[in-house]
Amino acid sequence: MRIGLGQINSVVGDLAGNAEKMRKTYAEALSNGVDLLVFPELAVCGYPPEDLLYKKHFLQDNQQTIEKLATDCPQMTIIAGFAEGLDDKNYNSAAILQDGHISKIYRKAQLPNYGVFDEERYFQAGSEPATIDIKGVRAAITVCRDIWDIKWLSSFLKDTGQIQLIVNISASPFHTGKMEQRKALMGGCARKFNCAVAYCNLVGGQDEIVFDGRSMIADSNGEIRATARAFDEDLLIADIITGDEGVRIEPMRPQVPQPGDSLDEIYQALVLGTRDYARKNGFEKVLLGLSGGIDSSVTAAVAAIALGAENVVGVTMPSKFNSPETKADAEKVAKNLGIGFLSISIEPTLEQFNRSLGSAPGWDNKGVAYENLQARIRGTMLMSLSNQYGALVLTSGNKSETAVGYATLYGDTAGGFAVIKDVPKTVVYKLAEHINKITGREVIPASVLSRPPSAELKAGQKDTDSLPDYDLLDEILKGYVEEDKSAEELIEAGLPKEAVHRVIRMVDRNEYKRRQSPPGIKITSKAFGKDRRLPITNRYRSPL
Amino acid sequence: MRIGLGQINSVVGDLAGNAEKMRKTYAEALSNGVDLLVFPELAVCGYPPEDLLYKKHFLQDNQQTIEKLATDCPQMTIIAGFAEGLDDKNYNSAAILQDGHISKIYRKAQLPNYGVFDEERYFQAGSEPATIDIKGVRAAITVCRDIWDIKWLSSFLKDTGQIQLIVNISASPFHTGKMEQRKALMGGCARKFNCAVAYCNLVGGQDEIVFDGRSMIADSNGEIRATARAFDEDLLIADIITGDEGVRIEPMRPQVPQPGDSLDEIYQALVLGTRDYARKNGFEKVLLGLSGGIDSSVTAAVAAIALGAENVVGVTMPSKFNSPETKADAEKVAKNLGIGFLSISIEPTLEQFNRSLGSAPGWDNKGVAYENLQARIRGTMLMSLSNQYGALVLTSGNKSETAVGYATLYGDTAGGFAVIKDVPKTVVYKLAEHINKITGREVIPASVLSRPPSAELKAGQKDTDSLPDYDLLDEILKGYVEEDKSAEELIEAGLPKEAVHRVIRMVDRNEYKRRQSPPGIKITSKAFGKDRRLPITNRYRSPL
Repeated sequence: MRIGLGQINSVVGDLAGNAEKMRKTYAEALSNGVDLLVFPELAVCGYPPEDLLYKKHFLQDNQQTIEKLATDCPQMTIIAGFAEGLDDKNYNSAAILQDGHISKIYRKAQLPNYGVFDEERYFQAGSEPATIDIKGVRAAITVCRDIWDIKWLSSFLKDTGQIQLIVNISASPFHTGKMEQRKALMGGCARKFNCAVAYCNLVGGQDEIVFDGRSMIADSNGEIRATARAFDEDLLIADIITGDEGVRIEPMRPQVPQPGDSLDEIYQALVLGTRDYARKNGFEKVLLGLSGGIDSSVTAAVAAIALGAENVVGVTMPSKFNSPETKADAEKVAKNLGIGFLSISIEPTLEQFNRSLGSAPGWDNKGVAYENLQARIRGTMLMSLSNQYGALVLTSGNKSETAVGYATLYGDTAGGFAVIKDVPKTVVYKLAEHINKITGREVIPASVLSRPPSAELKAGQKDTDSLPDYDLLDEILKGYVEEDKSAEELIEAGLPKEAVHRVIRMVDRNEYKRRQSPPGIKITSKAFGKDRRLPITNRYRSPL
Repeated sequence: MRIGLGQINSVVGDLAGNAEKMRKTYAEALSNGVDLLVFPELAVCGYPPEDLLYKKHFLQDNQQTIEKLATDCPQMTIIAGFAEGLDDKNYNSAAILQDGHISKIYRKAQLPNYGVFDEERYFQAGSEPATIDIKGVRAAITVCRDIWDIKWLSSFLKDTGQIQLIVNISASPFHTGKMEQRKALMGGCARKFNCAVAYCNLVGGQDEIVFDGRSMIADSNGEIRATARAFDEDLLIADIITGDEGVRIEPMRPQVPQPGDSLDEIYQALVLGTRDYARKNGFEKVLLGLSGGIDSSVTAAVAAIALGAENVVGVTMPSKFNSPETKADAEKVAKNLGIGFLSISIEPTLEQFNRSLGSAPGWDNKGVAYENLQARIRGTMLMSLSNQYGALVLTSGNKSETAVGYATLYGDTAGGFAVIKDVPKTVVYKLAEHINKITGREVIPASVLSRPPSAELKAGQKDTDSLPDYDLLDEILKGYVEEDKSAEELIEAGLPKEAVHRVIRMVDRNEYKRRQSPPGIKITSKAFGKDRRLPITNRYRSPL
């Protein structure tokens, strides 16, 4: 039996466009003799459709689209995810299309409602397993989290008889370490049920999350025998061969290359996430501020790779506090990347603001207000150019800054998409080196990598004036933000008390800034945004 | 049996502060001979604590706080909500405190996971009913949504025997029409079980939501016999008297006045929501832009009433496009309210920006970019003053504008709290009249009420240049946003096709602006924010 996993990049809400992608994949599968073609979870409407699921007409459109797909693709068995509205209940369903119509529907039973997931908000849990028989292969159909609890799955499938295959359609977002989890899971499932497992994942960026694809097929020993492309569309085809020795897998094509390491995964996630956010939202061009620092340099590089250098403009906006070295580096990065470059001094505007605000009692041209003013003038200039050119503004704040609120609201946070929002500062440095390595030249100059970080909002300013060293900061943040540890636990683990207290306090009181910051790409196990939902009004302080 | 409903204003995360409030209420109840004192849902930690519930130490602190409360308050039976962590599972629980310790725990069975609620994200559902007997009254304990499905509740309580009282602890957010729903529900419950119902609701503002209090006690005929204060703390005391005729209620004090109508409810919700957001986040003073228009006038009035006129500063920031009339009205509103007033012209800064941006190819001093620039200069000035004074910036965008994106991101949306974000423009006018009525003078001048709305970002501009009349706009928005109707349904209901299409398109494509806008007070059945969660990347278009 020949299976094809149609790893497509669905766009949320673009039902017609997604169906068209599926028809094209069907045509390709047909010419390759595929018997069973599988598409990801909610392939018809994209994932996650969120409150679109509260609209009755959206569910009707899902139904019409999947029915038309059945009519259009009669010559093989297809499994495809869609949002099903039935008697005032909604299901996250897999339709089985055969002979021009929907022959069966499986409804997802295990609904995730944690992290970035809100499926209990929208869906009823299904309760009936579903199997199909194709060319002597009996396959059980599952959706995403249904296979994540093997004990539960055993009980759920206990009456289906011996199966040779588990088909799992997924929309599983990327974060570092996720691939290893999935492989372990598939292996466990295959061995437990003594069958092959075919896992078809979505690919593409959707607001904060990136689906990394890498659909897989495991044999009944739990060995992964075929893996689809990472961070790209693919049609993975293999033969599933049953026999006394178990179920074997014979991939049709040689294995495609996979990401080199977790840094390479992050890099590819950022590129795809940026490309899809811009393109799916109708932007050809992007703009960003170039300070000559590491964050904006890496963001510019990702943008140039994702969208083409000709579609990126870097704008440097120096004041009297910017050193000649950083100004030169900003220009050098733009030149190295081949992107557009503009330089607009903020100095006369800063002076004029200062004069106008001088009429307000107590206005002071030295303090934090004056520092933030510089960042806000830059944000306003970028947004003015954005309005003028119809270009999306990318912001460059990293996860470490975002966590402690080391950013100016409506200043450097002004923009539509925050490329490295979930990348800790220490990883931003590694990414810069990775980008230089894969491009084979010094795209990001050595001087950018070696200069101590500074916001350059007053004379002689360094990040370390108000923050711990980034190595320490990132360690504290990993414990507090990603692992929900208390100050007490972090200090017990050996982290310095004063720094832990200071950092935690900064994280807690800057929730209001994060609430108004643009979405950015999740790459860690817990990102700011949908993944971590804390009240702004919140007096809780971790015990000391 | 004498019951007291301790309608307190808990602060999320302030476990010590909330416990202190509860101890004070206990002392007052004690001096009034109360037998059973009831506090709201999650009274110990505030509602909703969101992802604080993912922190183990937060659950431990909840446990310690409720145990200490039991020790501190041994002389009556107390029912109080807290977040319970038990064997790696969390529950939304009601502790029964008797004789200095926790004698029993009831765990909420019906977890809401829609609208602003995410309880399935955090809690396991309880499955066991709990009753207590106090002075011959048998009471079943329930938490919030447990009583919203009477059929389910009947089955849940089927083995408890005859009860004389249902105690319900709640954290039920306000929206227009909610009080009528609650009354109908309580009446239905009382008649169904032939018992009294004592409903203790939380009060106070928490980010986007306002709990309106109005705790109630119904007799076994379903008549509401006592209602606590609206939008304020209260201790509602009544005697519950059982007899052959059913369960009677005798309130200890005369009924306190309640809001006059739904406009008065909205007004009170805005005042409390604004006060609590500022105070709970540590702000004494607020700032806002005063344009001389209706939205900023109403926002200023609410702020002055909520926080005291001496804590509010209105800033007018005219350009060459502002008429002498609106400038005069801005000053008049400030004077009428007795708030601080500053006037800073944006004209020289606008000119300087225009000169600096003139070096960018294609910069145009006429289009949308130039209009938005004016709004962003104002936003930057307000934020600069906010940084200088430590004052919270209030924004003035109404729901109609927020829906269609008739606002400048980082311009007029710049600020920490959006007072009238969920108030449709047509209701803003009524609120202005209501404020004039209750203050007994023309706080908001007649000229502000009668002038056609304009953003004054170019010469002769009117809102109606780009939007339908507000009466029509608000009708379309109610159908599309609050009721999730399709374009088709709205047109079938008689709304003009062209306007429906145009408005829906504007709503859909401005999700990115709303995502970065500050929180504001929910007053309708569906507000923007936590209540309505749509993807930014979304190509779905309602069928025509």
